[in-house]
Amino acid sequence: MSAVRGNVVVTNIARADSEVVDGLARLGVSTVHEAQARTHLLDPALRPIYVGARIAGTAVTVSVPPGDNWMIHVAVEQCAEGDVLVVAPTTPSQAGYFGDLLATSVQARGVRGLVIDGGCRDVADLTGMRFPVWSRHVCAFGCVKETLGSVNVGVVCAGQWIEPGDVVVADDDGVVVVPRGRARQVLEAALAREEREAGIRERYRAGELGLDMNDMRPKLAAKGLTYVEQEPQR
Amino acid sequence: MSAVRGNVVVTNIARADSEVVDGLARLGVSTVHEAQARTHLLDPALRPIYVGARIAGTAVTVSVPPGDNWMIHVAVEQCAEGDVLVVAPTTPSQAGYFGDLLATSVQARGVRGLVIDGGCRDVADLTGMRFPVWSRHVCAFGCVKETLGSVNVGVVCAGQWIEPGDVVVADDDGVVVVPRGRARQVLEAALAREEREAGIRERYRAGELGLDMNDMRPKLAAKGLTYVEQEPQR
Amino acid sequence: MSAVRGNVVVTNIARADSEVVDGLARLGVSTVHEAQARTHLLDPALRPIYVGARIAGTAVTVSVPPGDNWMIHVAVEQCAEGDVLVVAPTTPSQAGYFGDLLATSVQARGVRGLVIDGGCRDVADLTGMRFPVWSRHVCAFGCVKETLGSVNVGVVCAGQWIEPGDVVVADDDGVVVVPRGRARQVLEAALAREEREAGIRERYRAGELGLDMNDMRPKLAAKGLTYVEQEPQR
Amino acid sequence: MSAVRGNVVVTNIARADSEVVDGLARLGVSTVHEAQARTHLLDPALRPIYVGARIAGTAVTVSVPPGDNWMIHVAVEQCAEGDVLVVAPTTPSQAGYFGDLLATSVQARGVRGLVIDGGCRDVADLTGMRFPVWSRHVCAFGCVKETLGSVNVGVVCAGQWIEPGDVVVADDDGVVVVPRGRARQVLEAALAREEREAGIRERYRAGELGLDMNDMRPKLAAKGLTYVEQEPQR
Amino acid sequence: MSAVRGNVVVTNIARADSEVVDGLARLGVSTVHEAQARTHLLDPALRPIYVGARIAGTAVTVSVPPGDNWMIHVAVEQCAEGDVLVVAPTTPSQAGYFGDLLATSVQARGVRGLVIDGGCRDVADLTGMRFPVWSRHVCAFGCVKETLGSVNVGVVCAGQWIEPGDVVVADDDGVVVVPRGRARQVLEAALAREEREAGIRERYRAGELGLDMNDMRPKLAAKGLTYVEQEPQR
Amino acid sequence: MSAVRGNVVVTNIARADSEVVDGLARLGVSTVHEAQARTHLLDPALRPIYVGARIAGTAVTVSVPPGDNWMIHVAVEQCAEGDVLVVAPTTPSQAGYFGDLLATSVQARGVRGLVIDGGCRDVADLTGMRFPVWSRHVCAFGCVKETLGSVNVGVVCAGQWIEPGDVVVADDDGVVVVPRGRARQVLEAALAREEREAGIRERYRAGELGLDMNDMRPKLAAKGLTYVEQEPQR
Repeated sequence: MSAVRGNVVVTNIARADSEVVDGLARLGVSTVHEAQARTHLLDPALRPIYVGARIAGTAVTVSVPPGDNWMIHVAVEQCAEGDVLVVAPTTPSQAGYFGDLLATSVQARGVRGLVIDGGCRDVADLTGMRFPVWSRHVCAFGCVKETLGSVNVGVVCAGQWIEPGDVVVADDDGVVVVPRGRARQVLEAALAREEREAGIRERYRAGELGLDMNDMRPKLAAKGLTYVEQEPQR
Repeated sequence: MSAVRGNVVVTNIARADSEVVDGLARLGVSTVHEAQARTHLLDPALRPIYVGARIAGTAVTVSVPPGDNWMIHVAVEQCAEGDVLVVAPTTPSQAGYFGDLLATSVQARGVRGLVIDGGCRDVADLTGMRFPVWSRHVCAFGCVKETLGSVNVGVVCAGQWIEPGDVVVADDDGVVVVPRGRARQVLEAALAREEREAGIRERYRAGELGLDMNDMRPKLAAKGLTYVEQEPQR
Repeated sequence: MSAVRGNVVVTNIARADSEVVDGLARLGVSTVHEAQARTHLLDPALRPIYVGARIAGTAVTVSVPPGDNWMIHVAVEQCAEGDVLVVAPTTPSQAGYFGDLLATSVQARGVRGLVIDGGCRDVADLTGMRFPVWSRHVCAFGCVKETLGSVNVGVVCAGQWIEPGDVVVADDDGVVVVPRGRARQVLEAALAREEREAGIRERYRAGELGLDMNDMRPKLAAKGLTYVEQEPQR
Repeated sequence: MSAVRGNVVVTNIARADSEVVDGLARLGVSTVHEAQARTHLLDPALRPIYVGARIAGTAVTVSVPPGDNWMIHVAVEQCAEGDVLVVAPTTPSQAGYFGDLLATSVQARGVRGLVIDGGCRDVADLTGMRFPVWSRHVCAFGCVKETLGSVNVGVVCAGQWIEPGDVVVADDDGVVVVPRGRARQVLEAALAREEREAGIRERYRAGELGLDMNDMRPKLAAKGLTYVEQEPQR
Repeated sequence: MSAVRGNVVVTNIARADSEVVDGLARLGVSTVHEAQARTHLLDPALRPIYVGARIAGTAVTVSVPPGDNWMIHVAVEQCAEGDVLVVAPTTPSQAGYFGDLLATSVQARGVRGLVIDGGCRDVADLTGMRFPVWSRHVCAFGCVKETLGSVNVGVVCAGQWIEPGDVVVADDDGVVVVPRGRARQVLEAALAREEREAGIRERYRAGELGLDMNDMRPKLAAKGLTYVEQEPQR
Repeated sequence: MSAVRGNVVVTNIARADSEVVDGLARLGVSTVHEAQARTHLLDPALRPIYVGARIAGTAVTVSVPPGDNWMIHVAVEQCAEGDVLVVAPTTPSQAGYFGDLLATSVQARGVRGLVIDGGCRDVADLTGMRFPVWSRHVCAFGCVKETLGSVNVGVVCAGQWIEPGDVVVADDDGVVVVPRGRARQVLEAALAREEREAGIRERYRAGELGLDMNDMRPKLAAKGLTYVEQEPQR
């Protein structure tokens, strides 16, 4: 779904700082998502086509009609080093919008991956190329090229509003979008969170309990939690 | 669902040319599917139990009652080198119709894999044996052996009509069926397509745009696509 | 869902024999499930986050409100060497209840894995730690810590009733629960089954047919199955 | 999915006897389905747009591309008094292929209803017109008219193979297809079944038990069913 | 799923007080569910076959194999005035386990309705008889009568543990179970709740705000909620 | 999902012309959706709780945490005559956020209905009050009141971006949103469409074919559609 009227391609979009983008990539989806107050997570039904990828990049957005991938061809030209392609059909579709040819084309331009609320195909080839895709479906059913859409307009993709230039972070946990204007601030919050978690992890590994570390016992008791020993049974 | 009345096992089915079958295997599902005008693709909900398999073979079809795998045992005897077992319950069922014992039995006869619109189990063993399965479910819930079905009759499997002797192609992109009588013609169309795509891939890799290669710009403009520069924002 | 009233933590639960538990682990889900008359299989929608794990352990059960993982922190203290954490939200939720920090904490206590009728996250880290999880969702969306639940009460998890101390077996085929009081008896039945299957596998590998080994032909004929040769066609 | 190659409209199809069709309508889906050995039932996900309709008619089949209803306009001309339109997209689609205008057009030709493995819209108007539709979705999203399909070829609709001229029976219980060549025989079996059930219903109403009427007790005991009195509890 | 081993029919179950049951029926599902701390609600995927029914009754439970309704015939004899039949397949199944004949039989014994985690059929007839059913599916696909199950054992039905004799309440909002031992206490809590809500409803109708009635404004401010006027826009 | 940062309530939102809103209500979802080029249709999984309602109104939007309806109570105060409440959880939830008490409160302020990408309850009461709701679920499971959200910020609801003040149109076909700034223009386009369709309907009723009215035959022939007579068969 696109909020812009008519069929347009917006060029020369503003992009987030590459240093911020790369910082977010390193931290990963779960940490970034927590750092922005548990918002902007895409529908977890989007899954990676292979495990182990972790990327962040600037969103180049594509609003496409169902079963029609013409606008992805249009979008290629708008892609630059460090981008992530974000494709949102205007109505649900499991068609395969994207395969190894389009991947070759965008990878040549430095695109880091694809996030699509639809289907992709040629997944064995894409895996071989190490071009990661997060999609709702894997489906060989191809697309027509008949109807216009738009490139680099705000879109709803898998339940979240994404504007061109926003930062998209994706890994085995899913996909999260960080609005461009907040990216640095989210990075800082995420780094702080990561540091804090490193300490916690160490203490957990040593056997310390979260109950004690977070002083939860009085709160639990106040809410009425009771401990009882199991009776001899069965 | 079977179109044949009564419970029958059809023997001595006609099979597609093995050379044609092997050619289709090499090309894979997405190319074959395009080469037959985007038809005959099975429901993408059928997924492989492990990644990286790519097979083609002659369909030996089995129509089974829900939760009953007796007819698969009957079908084993009808299988020959190069076949693919195609199992279709008469009504949806997630039961585990097939496991490592049946796989051992059909692999001994040269069967290349299983396509089932239901569940399979023992997937760790099947993976170890390199016996590929495309199924709707992975489910340990076993079957009874009480009610007849049919072997080598036309069936609807995952939304497509499959006749015994048709060619089944399956890989990480899904499963497609090629009617036996058209298999050679589809192979030729797919080979032509593959060759064409190889050239395109090379040009994409070199940075050429699909917009230019396919002369899309005038068509896009004629349909009203407009390019606008992003205004300074946020 | 928990059958116990009020919010309690039951301590010192009775556990199944570790030798029985380990025996069940070796046999795996499909064999164990058959050995207890095809009962107690959890909904196959619970899938492992990585392939190849096979565990069994004693259930420490946790009943949690939707989107709230406070009680998992409480449950950690109740875990011992050889346990499996079983988490059941009181109403469906795809939230990510469990990640690498909690995994570090329970792994330090000897817990073998997690079965959860909800979401988990940090799956790349969990895979790296070899801490297996069977979950309905992978989802980065985190939890709050506001509302009590219970630990070590009977719960319904993915459609099966599980009591603390029951044996949970999980592998690539799914998850099955064995009531503690029946664990030894089920192990024995499963071992007998395994032995029987080893012989069958050998004969299948040699090309013998199930039709003959099980003397199915007369029964099939009695039910009316007929064999017909395919006519020349198409 | 269509088994015929190329895009064709088959005219002058053979139709089932109208007297047989009307007889099947009166009996309804569940009885007819039982009378043909529990086969040929469409996926129960197809639901009527309003309750209380019960129809039978001759199938005029339409194979359509996803999101394209051009061929339904073509099919109208092939419809005659007593027909039921059967629409099957070549790949899943929730688009709204059919609304009050098309309904007006086919109702003017005596068509009794629509069965579609996709979406329909204008359901308030269709209800007002008493034009019944069994569809998988209700969806306002309209279709394009760009791509050919076929009319009156065999199709897979909601998991069943339907040929033009077959009898389609639909009511609140769902949709079943009866192959034209077997329609009279199925009608007779269904009438016999109905008569038998009328007697059973009367005896049930009078309080007689199925256990006794069908002499089930010895069989149950032989299989090992035991009766125990509840102990005093809780 | 049944927790009892072997195949048994438990007779002479203890039933809840009919006066308590009828009180719960009048209050309805949502009020009763709140009154027992938001627990014991069945999966909302169970829907009534017609609107406007509201019942409560004593559970007679039936554990059935998938696609097999033999044990429902066995259960009829165990039903008494004021009961509700609760049917739980051991593994998911959309088969039609129950139709107008069984409904006639149990209605003759005073059974008030059916709750089934599976399919039912003959829904037009059941509606005409005013025999309400809450089911996961409507499906004409019939059952076999081959395999035993159990009657009046604890079952998991649509995600909740139900014991024979528990109170089942069902209306357009869904189905909730009240453990027999707590039924009177839940009724009292629900009555108190209803009375409280009647007063609230009156004040709401008069235009009073929940914000004020519940003194929420300070709490909202304390959590950081801010009010801003919309700027002139678009 | 909300694009505004922090938790705010925006007051004094601009509203669409009431005359435009009422005009859109009369035309209905399918016509309005076509009139804005098939965009802005909410996910058809949102269904009305009773048939026959058709409304339009100004959106008062509410972004809520999963399972928490506190902000709906806050939103009531922002509602005025002719509004439609639009509720969007930040992550999928089937909880029952809204029942007869809240309906009483907003109906007293002139609110015309509710659109919610989650669950509602008390549907029998809501139907009796003629307060229409379009929801994804019907579910008695109630909400907590613990966590803030926002009122009158842009939200993604059922896959579409909705801003406060936009026009929401809802009927038996689903829900569509019309951006406030385009409402009059869409109304005019929809009126023109309706007039055109009235003429078409009359001609269809008289038996004229769409094939002829729209001069489709040459286009179909040009694309290669062929007509063949059915051969004598079966």
